[in-house]
Amino acid sequence: MFESAELGHRIDKGVWDREVPALREALLDAQYDLAAAKFPVVILVAGVDGAGKSETVNTLNEWMDPRHIQTHGLDEPSDEERERPHMWRYWRMLPPRGKIGIFDGSWYTWPILERAHGRIKTSDLDQDMARVARFEQMLIHEGALVLKFWMHLGKEQQKKRLKGLEKDPQTRWRVTPRDWKHFEMYDTFRQVAERALRSTSTAEAPWIVVEATDARYQRLTVGKILLERLRARLDQPVPAVPAVPAHPPHPSLDGVNILRALDLSKRMEKKDYEEELLELQGRLNLLARHRNFRKHAVALVFEGVDAAGKGGSIRRITQALDARRYHIHPIAAPTEEERAQPYLWRFWRHLPRRGKVAIFDRSWYGRVLVERVEGFCAEADWQRAYSEINDFEDQIVRNRSILLKFWLSISQEEQLRRFEERQTTPFKRFKITDEDWRNREKWPAYEAAICDMLDRTSTEIAPWTLVESEDKRFGRIKILKTIVQRLEDEL
Amino acid sequence: MFESAELGHRIDKGVWDREVPALREALLDAQYDLAAAKFPVVILVAGVDGAGKSETVNTLNEWMDPRHIQTHGLDEPSDEERERPHMWRYWRMLPPRGKIGIFDGSWYTWPILERAHGRIKTSDLDQDMARVARFEQMLIHEGALVLKFWMHLGKEQQKKRLKGLEKDPQTRWRVTPRDWKHFEMYDTFRQVAERALRSTSTAEAPWIVVEATDARYQRLTVGKILLERLRARLDQPVPAVPAVPAHPPHPSLDGVNILRALDLSKRMEKKDYEEELLELQGRLNLLARHRNFRKHAVALVFEGVDAAGKGGSIRRITQALDARRYHIHPIAAPTEEERAQPYLWRFWRHLPRRGKVAIFDRSWYGRVLVERVEGFCAEADWQRAYSEINDFEDQIVRNRSILLKFWLSISQEEQLRRFEERQTTPFKRFKITDEDWRNREKWPAYEAAICDMLDRTSTEIAPWTLVESEDKRFGRIKILKTIVQRLEDEL
Repeated sequence: MFESAELGHRIDKGVWDREVPALREALLDAQYDLAAAKFPVVILVAGVDGAGKSETVNTLNEWMDPRHIQTHGLDEPSDEERERPHMWRYWRMLPPRGKIGIFDGSWYTWPILERAHGRIKTSDLDQDMARVARFEQMLIHEGALVLKFWMHLGKEQQKKRLKGLEKDPQTRWRVTPRDWKHFEMYDTFRQVAERALRSTSTAEAPWIVVEATDARYQRLTVGKILLERLRARLDQPVPAVPAVPAHPPHPSLDGVNILRALDLSKRMEKKDYEEELLELQGRLNLLARHRNFRKHAVALVFEGVDAAGKGGSIRRITQALDARRYHIHPIAAPTEEERAQPYLWRFWRHLPRRGKVAIFDRSWYGRVLVERVEGFCAEADWQRAYSEINDFEDQIVRNRSILLKFWLSISQEEQLRRFEERQTTPFKRFKITDEDWRNREKWPAYEAAICDMLDRTSTEIAPWTLVESEDKRFGRIKILKTIVQRLEDEL
Repeated sequence: MFESAELGHRIDKGVWDREVPALREALLDAQYDLAAAKFPVVILVAGVDGAGKSETVNTLNEWMDPRHIQTHGLDEPSDEERERPHMWRYWRMLPPRGKIGIFDGSWYTWPILERAHGRIKTSDLDQDMARVARFEQMLIHEGALVLKFWMHLGKEQQKKRLKGLEKDPQTRWRVTPRDWKHFEMYDTFRQVAERALRSTSTAEAPWIVVEATDARYQRLTVGKILLERLRARLDQPVPAVPAVPAHPPHPSLDGVNILRALDLSKRMEKKDYEEELLELQGRLNLLARHRNFRKHAVALVFEGVDAAGKGGSIRRITQALDARRYHIHPIAAPTEEERAQPYLWRFWRHLPRRGKVAIFDRSWYGRVLVERVEGFCAEADWQRAYSEINDFEDQIVRNRSILLKFWLSISQEEQLRRFEERQTTPFKRFKITDEDWRNREKWPAYEAAICDMLDRTSTEIAPWTLVESEDKRFGRIKILKTIVQRLEDEL
């Protein structure tokens, strides 16, 4: 995989002087066309030590308009980042549509180094790489152009490079004992990198290995490939219809489904409710002040048809919590900034730190509910969303976060009763809009979407809790009890 | 994921009697259309014990024309199968285009059971499932319709089912102590299965969970979904252009490449050659009779332009081996049977058992060489082939097979000399055809394809050995030496 990048490729100064001006102009043109074309470009620059990664990144910034490029170095993760899933820091760095994001160090860096140092096993590396491949696949399906450059130096070349830097008093400071220690690991590192590259080189996002012996060759190669890929993509947009059609979910033959099978007649008397509510809220309050609570992040997801009682249930939880501990995210239409990113981006940004509770009043499930039913996204988009959402929740759960998902279920008749009550009660009137009535007409389509959602995303790592909410009191207590029991198990 | 399949779905006899005749007719029609439509259908039937898997498979055979269905139960692997990569047995069972293959037990069975019994770790299961997902993706890209049914019974239902069978003297023999032991593992099994299903449910091949409480419901559901998917695919063929365009490889800027960088002036004197040849052949002969030789399968791949000396090199190897030990596979155009399968199928079938040597005179690399250059496959097909080939070789190597790949390199001038020699030497004339001359004109296109192939498929698990073959003697000795050294390392 690296053999072709150990041949001593070079470009002489004449060629460089002749070609660079035209390349710069063409790159700038492409960059402006990109702003209109509205897809993001993700450029990864990885490779061995001393292979001119940052110099190449700087050259790209110099050649193009840096105002539309976001460059990210890989510093030590911040507190903020350490307390969230591993991929969180990269999600927040993703370039919006129309922009270029350059990653000097990326989601590959950590797994490759950890494996090279023997701190994780080969099977762990393989698992990480499988996750990375799925993540990149998602980016590509969301429209991103992904370019992955691997800067390579042969062993002898790397030694020469380090010695050269050391000899010059101006650059001596750049060579540290750590660099020489890394050099001793060259063969191991090379083998691990080759394994990582092999399993993540796909037809849509292959690794491009570039020899770094000669800076002119290296930079001209990167610039030209970037230009070519940008142009190819600008001139030929991704077709709307996927090559391989997805299989739509199937409604059950006998009309029985998991929503209809719920016993909505479950009720609770007012007196019992008030007693239990107080008791559960007290336990929740104590749990949130427990020493171990700070070791976990908590994410609570509330979904349900209009007027199912999401708001009221959420209030019964927050009443028991210190306001500094929780944050409620009511999910409405995405903002402009959010629309410029993959659809999961706006949920990633709200993932809580340890010791905090994030409450999602509606959530990422909008993709497979309202967006599916209303046709806000293509069929292929919501069909691939099930596994993308499962991958997203896998990331959350592997970070020792506690994720609870509640579906609040009411009957069509009860919804009508509540709508009418809202319309006649002055202080509730703001809660009901024409859209609510329109959504109500699509009940059967929503029911099918909900059942499919439950089937495809109720998993062993993040099961759904179905809540019989026809009686508000019964529903609220079931939710509180689920949360309290789960926290008691974990802490 | 399984909740919807624990609701007690049923279909009454009236509905069954009314619907089955029409379904059978429609299935038969679809089956005949399939024969003309030329894509294979792969149906997996998996699930918990006692969930009527084989009964469902039998029903499908009864409803359709069994002559065009190939049904496979999962027996213990044979000697033949145990000595080859794990997936070999499934490759040989794949249905050809136009046929339906039903797998009662599949590539999921073993990993799920092994994990449920605690004999492999969760990370091993995840790795296996990642490989399975890539394998199924390949099948789908090769045109297959893949349907995965999971037959489910809730815990109570499964208990009832086993007790019911036990009570009836006619069916008592079917319930073994092993079934009850499995039943005790129900919760573990369910959790492992859910994990496996979650990570392999893709938009193009989602798992379809079917409740097995009522046989009529179960069979009608499977039949109707099969009909619907078959019809959808027959009516709307897969478009030729993929949704996400692949990134083509890039030639190097300075015209230097790995082929041109080879030192073709390397030569060997006749006397030295004859001595070394004898010595190496002697060592190879001893190695092939070594006790440990029987623990490995050996696959040798020879690629190179016409007249590069593949045949002569192969003969120098086989001279040292017992003819019962090796098999040479000269790869020409695929047979009719082979054309009805994924392109790698014809190489899987020739993978050697332990203690045997398979010599491929040309190989699976035809996909990214001749098929690419001559346009015998679509661009998207050869571009995805690099990672498919890497996955294939990963399977071979993980089975403790020894895989060596040789690229025999000669210059364009030397090729011309050999061609002319062939034309003027009567006993060599059969070796040269008009096609050889035509191929020669495409030298630059082949050179680019060869360089890309070396870059993308020379991996840490299966590196290419580049052989300077301008001087036949030098090339032959390098090949023999590489084989002998590798065998000495392994045995």
